[in-house]
Amino acid sequence: MRIGKIIGTVTATRKDERLVGFKLLLTQPYVNGQAKGEPLVAVDTVGAGIGEIVLYATGSASRHAANKPQSPIDASIVGIIDSIDVAE
Amino acid sequence: MRIGKIIGTVTATRKDERLVGFKLLLTQPYVNGQAKGEPLVAVDTVGAGIGEIVLYATGSASRHAANKPQSPIDASIVGIIDSIDVAE
Amino acid sequence: MRIGKIIGTVTATRKDERLVGFKLLLTQPYVNGQAKGEPLVAVDTVGAGIGEIVLYATGSASRHAANKPQSPIDASIVGIIDSIDVAE
Amino acid sequence: MRIGKIIGTVTATRKDERLVGFKLLLTQPYVNGQAKGEPLVAVDTVGAGIGEIVLYATGSASRHAANKPQSPIDASIVGIIDSIDVAE
Amino acid sequence: MRIGKIIGTVTATRKDERLVGFKLLLTQPYVNGQAKGEPLVAVDTVGAGIGEIVLYATGSASRHAANKPQSPIDASIVGIIDSIDVAE
Repeated sequence: MRIGKIIGTVTATRKDERLVGFKLLLTQPYVNGQAKGEPLVAVDTVGAGIGEIVLYATGSASRHAANKPQSPIDASIVGIIDSIDVAE
Repeated sequence: MRIGKIIGTVTATRKDERLVGFKLLLTQPYVNGQAKGEPLVAVDTVGAGIGEIVLYATGSASRHAANKPQSPIDASIVGIIDSIDVAE
Repeated sequence: MRIGKIIGTVTATRKDERLVGFKLLLTQPYVNGQAKGEPLVAVDTVGAGIGEIVLYATGSASRHAANKPQSPIDASIVGIIDSIDVAE
Repeated sequence: MRIGKIIGTVTATRKDERLVGFKLLLTQPYVNGQAKGEPLVAVDTVGAGIGEIVLYATGSASRHAANKPQSPIDASIVGIIDSIDVAE
Repeated sequence: MRIGKIIGTVTATRKDERLVGFKLLLTQPYVNGQAKGEPLVAVDTVGAGIGEIVLYATGSASRHAANKPQSPIDASIVGIIDSIDVAE
């Protein structure tokens, strides 16, 4: 999994029907305390909100997270991070 | 999923027969309001057109989008984006 | 799928037996009319030749292209491109 | 697999239930004797600890490592490295 | 598949039991006659040795190469290259 920050949302009226009902969260990689790089759009499976630091999974793992193994999902939020402890 | 812009089309007369009947859309990653980086070729599953900002999926997710789990597809357009709301 | 240019061939006498019988084509990503970046080795499923501009698929999609879902293939040529039309 | 260094841990109270019970290890790619680049979060399947140099797998391989093929896991620690011998 | 050079070996006493019995080969991407970039650790399925130029596969393809579809393997050596012929 990767660490990301939820920086926004995406709205798409016309979309694959298996995406209906999921929040589409704009998620930016979060490295060394900074959100940077190309954001991706992940479906929310844990009730994440704007500004939160999250764990996200990509590929087939993300479909298992959403309990939709036969869907077009390729990225999901799978956890909300409480703390990141980096060893000295 | 990633955000992309449809910047063109690709024609291939000689191709895997499981690609026949799909529009092949040249799709460029779209970051911070700008299309940039290496374009990929995605099959259209939602009726997307030139200039539209879309959601695309890659890998096995894209075959589910096309309802062709046993095909050579590795990228599909899965939604047309109405709005991207980035939090302040 | 990605766009590539066939720039050569690879010969490997000692290889996984499921690769026997496939042409192994050295394929370079082709962006904005230029072949550049790290080439990969794709199996040919459409009769592609040196110098041609092609569509290639990677990952499990490439094994479906080759009709070998249980093989070590992770990249296949799946189409020969006639034209790339980029919108103005 | 890739070589990484365990540089920390991540805590997430709210997470996919299939991640419960796994240590979430912050793992940084380790190249030429140096940890560098974007860390990922891998589940521990071998009893790895802070500071250790490990082998990690990504994608569906990591779910097999965790014996959870239907889970949201996309990265796992699969070995603890004793030595890396680079040929002269 | 990608082209790589075998530049060393990795030893890991504590590892997933499905990796036992495989040589773990440090494999560096090989581009334009030069080994460069982040090495990965691939299992050997063809009897490759130090210094050899090889074909390697990643992802689920590599598990088929090793005939271990349910294992943590995500990279395998699948061929030993005799020659690379780049067209003029």
